[in-house]
Amino acid sequence: MRRTGKVLQSESVTSQIEPTLRPFFDPAGIVIVGASAAPTKLGFGVARNLAQSGYTGAIHFVNPRGGRLLERPVYATIADVPDPVDLAVLIVPAPAMPSTLEQVGRRGIRAAIIVSGGFRETGPTGAALEDECLRVARDHDMRLIGPNCVGLLDTHRPLDTTFLPPPGPTPGDVAFISHSGAICAAVIDWARGQGFGLSHLVSLGNQIDVRETDVLSAVAADDHTRVITLYLEGISDGRRFVHAARQVTRHKPLIALKVGRFAAGQRAVASHTGALAGQESAFNAAFRRAGVIRANTSEELFDWARALAWCPLPAGRDVAVLTNAGGPGVTAADALESHGLRLAALRPETEAALRAILPPDAGTHNPVDMLAAATAGQYVECLRLLLDDPGVHSVLVIVPPPPLESAGGIARALIPIIYAAAKPVIIALMGERMIQEAVEYFRAARVPEYRFPERAASALAVLVERAESVRARRADDDHANGAPPLGRIDPDRVHRLLIRHGRDGQGDGGFLPFEVVNDILTAYGIRVPRVALATTAAEAVDMAWQIGFPVALKIAAPDIVHKSEAGGVRLNLQDPDGVRRAFDEVLSAARAAAPQADILGVYVQQMILIGQEVIVGAVQDAQFGPLVMFGSGGVEVEGLRDVEFALAPVTPGEAEGLLARTWAGRRLGGFRNMPPADRAAALDVIRRLGQLAADFPQLAEIELNPVRVLPGDGGACAVDARARLLDQRNSTGGAARASMT
Amino acid sequence: MRRTGKVLQSESVTSQIEPTLRPFFDPAGIVIVGASAAPTKLGFGVARNLAQSGYTGAIHFVNPRGGRLLERPVYATIADVPDPVDLAVLIVPAPAMPSTLEQVGRRGIRAAIIVSGGFRETGPTGAALEDECLRVARDHDMRLIGPNCVGLLDTHRPLDTTFLPPPGPTPGDVAFISHSGAICAAVIDWARGQGFGLSHLVSLGNQIDVRETDVLSAVAADDHTRVITLYLEGISDGRRFVHAARQVTRHKPLIALKVGRFAAGQRAVASHTGALAGQESAFNAAFRRAGVIRANTSEELFDWARALAWCPLPAGRDVAVLTNAGGPGVTAADALESHGLRLAALRPETEAALRAILPPDAGTHNPVDMLAAATAGQYVECLRLLLDDPGVHSVLVIVPPPPLESAGGIARALIPIIYAAAKPVIIALMGERMIQEAVEYFRAARVPEYRFPERAASALAVLVERAESVRARRADDDHANGAPPLGRIDPDRVHRLLIRHGRDGQGDGGFLPFEVVNDILTAYGIRVPRVALATTAAEAVDMAWQIGFPVALKIAAPDIVHKSEAGGVRLNLQDPDGVRRAFDEVLSAARAAAPQADILGVYVQQMILIGQEVIVGAVQDAQFGPLVMFGSGGVEVEGLRDVEFALAPVTPGEAEGLLARTWAGRRLGGFRNMPPADRAAALDVIRRLGQLAADFPQLAEIELNPVRVLPGDGGACAVDARARLLDQRNSTGGAARASMT
Repeated sequence: MRRTGKVLQSESVTSQIEPTLRPFFDPAGIVIVGASAAPTKLGFGVARNLAQSGYTGAIHFVNPRGGRLLERPVYATIADVPDPVDLAVLIVPAPAMPSTLEQVGRRGIRAAIIVSGGFRETGPTGAALEDECLRVARDHDMRLIGPNCVGLLDTHRPLDTTFLPPPGPTPGDVAFISHSGAICAAVIDWARGQGFGLSHLVSLGNQIDVRETDVLSAVAADDHTRVITLYLEGISDGRRFVHAARQVTRHKPLIALKVGRFAAGQRAVASHTGALAGQESAFNAAFRRAGVIRANTSEELFDWARALAWCPLPAGRDVAVLTNAGGPGVTAADALESHGLRLAALRPETEAALRAILPPDAGTHNPVDMLAAATAGQYVECLRLLLDDPGVHSVLVIVPPPPLESAGGIARALIPIIYAAAKPVIIALMGERMIQEAVEYFRAARVPEYRFPERAASALAVLVERAESVRARRADDDHANGAPPLGRIDPDRVHRLLIRHGRDGQGDGGFLPFEVVNDILTAYGIRVPRVALATTAAEAVDMAWQIGFPVALKIAAPDIVHKSEAGGVRLNLQDPDGVRRAFDEVLSAARAAAPQADILGVYVQQMILIGQEVIVGAVQDAQFGPLVMFGSGGVEVEGLRDVEFALAPVTPGEAEGLLARTWAGRRLGGFRNMPPADRAAALDVIRRLGQLAADFPQLAEIELNPVRVLPGDGGACAVDARARLLDQRNSTGGAARASMT
Repeated sequence: MRRTGKVLQSESVTSQIEPTLRPFFDPAGIVIVGASAAPTKLGFGVARNLAQSGYTGAIHFVNPRGGRLLERPVYATIADVPDPVDLAVLIVPAPAMPSTLEQVGRRGIRAAIIVSGGFRETGPTGAALEDECLRVARDHDMRLIGPNCVGLLDTHRPLDTTFLPPPGPTPGDVAFISHSGAICAAVIDWARGQGFGLSHLVSLGNQIDVRETDVLSAVAADDHTRVITLYLEGISDGRRFVHAARQVTRHKPLIALKVGRFAAGQRAVASHTGALAGQESAFNAAFRRAGVIRANTSEELFDWARALAWCPLPAGRDVAVLTNAGGPGVTAADALESHGLRLAALRPETEAALRAILPPDAGTHNPVDMLAAATAGQYVECLRLLLDDPGVHSVLVIVPPPPLESAGGIARALIPIIYAAAKPVIIALMGERMIQEAVEYFRAARVPEYRFPERAASALAVLVERAESVRARRADDDHANGAPPLGRIDPDRVHRLLIRHGRDGQGDGGFLPFEVVNDILTAYGIRVPRVALATTAAEAVDMAWQIGFPVALKIAAPDIVHKSEAGGVRLNLQDPDGVRRAFDEVLSAARAAAPQADILGVYVQQMILIGQEVIVGAVQDAQFGPLVMFGSGGVEVEGLRDVEFALAPVTPGEAEGLLARTWAGRRLGGFRNMPPADRAAALDVIRRLGQLAADFPQLAEIELNPVRVLPGDGGACAVDARARLLDQRNSTGGAARASMT
């Protein structure tokens, strides 16, 4: 069943094009069904674009009216089309599409782009037509792009099956894959105006068969593509996307603009983790795992793409700023630091050399301010010196409209140095019309230039992000290979526990009894407080002595889920008297609250009051499967929002990332008078809970709140825990679960 | 002494130009000293620009060489210049500047712009020259702009004293005031390229006399100026700026780009409040008080200026999006919601009317998607319907390069509707070259257009911010007038306390004894725990009974500042035995730790363990004077960073704002099982501490942490408090204190 991608899922994703997709990207011959001579018809636009694209394969047109079009014959039926032909572009009314596909299949063509709309996007009738198209395609082992799409173009092969008004994009190194057809024309126009070329453009439409992940892997295999940009409105198979994208980002940067942030689906949640695990948390975790850079705006998507396509990666965060005026230098410094970059400390030799070529009032500390009269020669010499400084990892050059030199002259002089440099150089050109000549020079030389220092700094920051992600990936892979596997894990025991409690995939959801939750956590090596079952007050006191005061008492009655509300919990009992009194109170309160409940006795549980409180939670996301959350625990979790998510299972590096990105994680290293806590134990709990969530997708939510992380190497203990099974009747987790098993 | 602005400070700032500044903005005649015929000289640039500016007053040139320039005589000395002349523009080498100024003064000219550099920015010699210039200017009651500046221009008067290369800006309604001269040329060029005009441009240079605040008030008085933009590298007199800006923003929007975020000065801090009160917190608080909108980037500064200059203000946050394609509509919806705006719910009549004019597959919910074939007529009709819907406060119209209609045609059709509308309409034009015609139409009609939906949404959000700020100002003014004054305030008592403790402006700083802090807070009506002094263990037990258990004991020894470290504090004593034991322990520990200390006994203090914990702090900022901080308290204040600042004293509306912008404030309304706490009491503590900090600038830091805000109307109590006096020997607060007294 191709639709869910299961066939591909079991295959390893490489940077080879999946063979069934090859006709889309390297067709020997293309037939346009519905080719038209009427200039306002899409069928004319596609025919014109393909004919003018320089495509060297065979081009065929089909239209029942026959005749000639663009100096080619028009065949009346698909059956008439001669070899070679392995790709069909279909522009016929939706109701005629199934029968047209049937003819395409009979002709032996195994790939089709359905340009026409009128399908699922228009309602139930259209959806039924769409299903019918898919059925026909499967009968013929045919792959489909669309329907309701702009199609695809490749500027290097070249090939253009879109109907977009000319001019098409100039050839370049940025690929664009889009869920929206409407923005394709704008992107082509924008790229032209901003002076960068495209390698591929693929519009996916309704995605009844070929999806973003398929196209991503195929486009990544193209040598002309140096950066892939994605406009996403969602992801159809989260884990498969993550897997494929992670393969791609090993070699090529991938930037995604994911829209629809605020259209998150509703889901029933009963925990802090569930409440906070919005669609965006899941996407951020998935993109982080996959090494995908997330753009916040359309402009960032392409600003960043140019920098990533054209620049070497910096070895670190230390940036030198070269300017001929103070103000823009300060603006640049601000912007750099707001992105977490640093102003490089220049070495004394560099500063001395700068002093030798600059006027005495010039600033030779970073930002280097050459003053307003800076010549092109000074720009060149200073840039060379900065690039030669081993403490400088990249350079941001600011060119305001200079009072004397022309910006164009400066650009021409700088380009050879930038070309030869192994470090990235980004240009901030100030102004608009007066610097146009410089803009043209830089674009022609593929040197990224931006209008103000802020956008230039943002592009530099992305280069650093990419460089660090590549390095972290390497380290994480090494670490993962060398890291000890999680010992003391007993999935069979958890499986039996879930079966025994009659809720394994068949119950009505709801919370598991706390005894079961404790057993599950113990089976995965997560420490819980010591606990023992007492049937008399005297027994309870004995146990409290063994466990150590203070203790908590909890009614042992699996039927009573909300123990506190039933008066069945007493905390922080300091002495034998307290335990004795509490035992009787707990018992009588529970009997009063639930007369028919089966009461086994009273649990005596260790109270842990030292250590730092954190929350560790797990939840099943509909698109990306199990997620783990870490952060500041307690009751104010949603208010403080000091939490971060990662896909489960979690690598050691990812667990470290959760600690680094939260205050709860950073403070484990100690702060003020608080001693350092057992970070290793916290990391261990994160990874164990992640493994549990990955192994048992039927656990919809598991939340340890708080986990107490003890000082020194005292370990960590899940003081309170709750877990909820997936409600089968109202599940949104089907896809995620399928992809996890 | 004009330099510190004290003269002006006592005057009320109105939208009239300060009389001594009038010659800069409305000169009867201008002399350019250092006018030159050499095209590469600044003295030529200024002469050329002024001559070509259309200035209708008298223009005079001075150069020792004499001769003629630009068809005018060149006088050899300033004394030769005939009437009328009331403004001098000086372009002579720095060393000659004092004597030149002397001649300007003798000629009876009372305003000069010093264009030349070579002053404070170059080191001590330049600084001495600068001081000398100021001295000469004062002798002649002369006002100075600069030195080291670009000068000023006014496109409406018109008048141009800058040397910037032509073309100058087109006349418009945006004023630009800049600490950086270098970005002026870029801004003019940018404005031209982006299709908006400027009213004023003023470059301030080293600001030895006239500063941002003076120019701000003067420019605001100009009727052609609808929006004022500021590029700031700092503010020379914070409170005066806030006062003036607040006057201006009553009538005109003011947008500031403040750079140098990361160059915050070092200061000695001993509290959470001090540590968190960076320069940026102070600027944000000041801008909020002043109604100044803060831009984060240069692009935002001008994107927002256009919208504010050209659009009516929206009545609310509900936005309708009109698009001809789904993708950009989703992008716009995302961007709007990320700025806190809402997609308007269209009323049924509107949706029905939309259905009547749109194809059946079109989306008539908001975002309204007319589909790709939308005509200019449909754009017009739909926009009209949306504007007529009372639930719609503004409209964002998206125009991608349309496959059929020209974007220019759509623009032409829309403009009359937008012109007539009382609600703002912002345009997102997708693409670059294909939509150029539409861009030109919209710009000519002064309809704000942006390249992608995200920037359009950001501009709409600023319109909403401005509208809400205007409304809040009105409400706050009403409230402040109607609000009861803070009763139970006894500044005399605090004054006496500070005197008595020998630290009022003469001590060595350091912390005040806790008894004194409690007395100070009590004098300002801030509740502290009940406390009594015991000299025997029996007395302590008696007092504990009176106060109520649990209690804390604290050694009563003013010399022992760090009581906890000396073993002089015991918390949470539950019963008489505990108090008795603790009394002896505290006493002997303190004696052992500080044998020579004068021990008065032991304080028995009420423990308050219920209620919500918050922090309320105050600190003196060097630029803006007293600031109040509110947020999540405890020891993790810096880690959680859930704090916000306001200028003290704090209005009722500002105090509400502090609560609204922090989780600590929002949770006072109750959350989960936590009952609502006494918000009114929290607001009261904020205002009282603000008043205290404003009244006593010698209190460098005061921190109440935690304040416990009790449930219901139980009040609030400052459970722990510390206060530090300003260290006179190492003060950075002088300016702030001066401005507060």
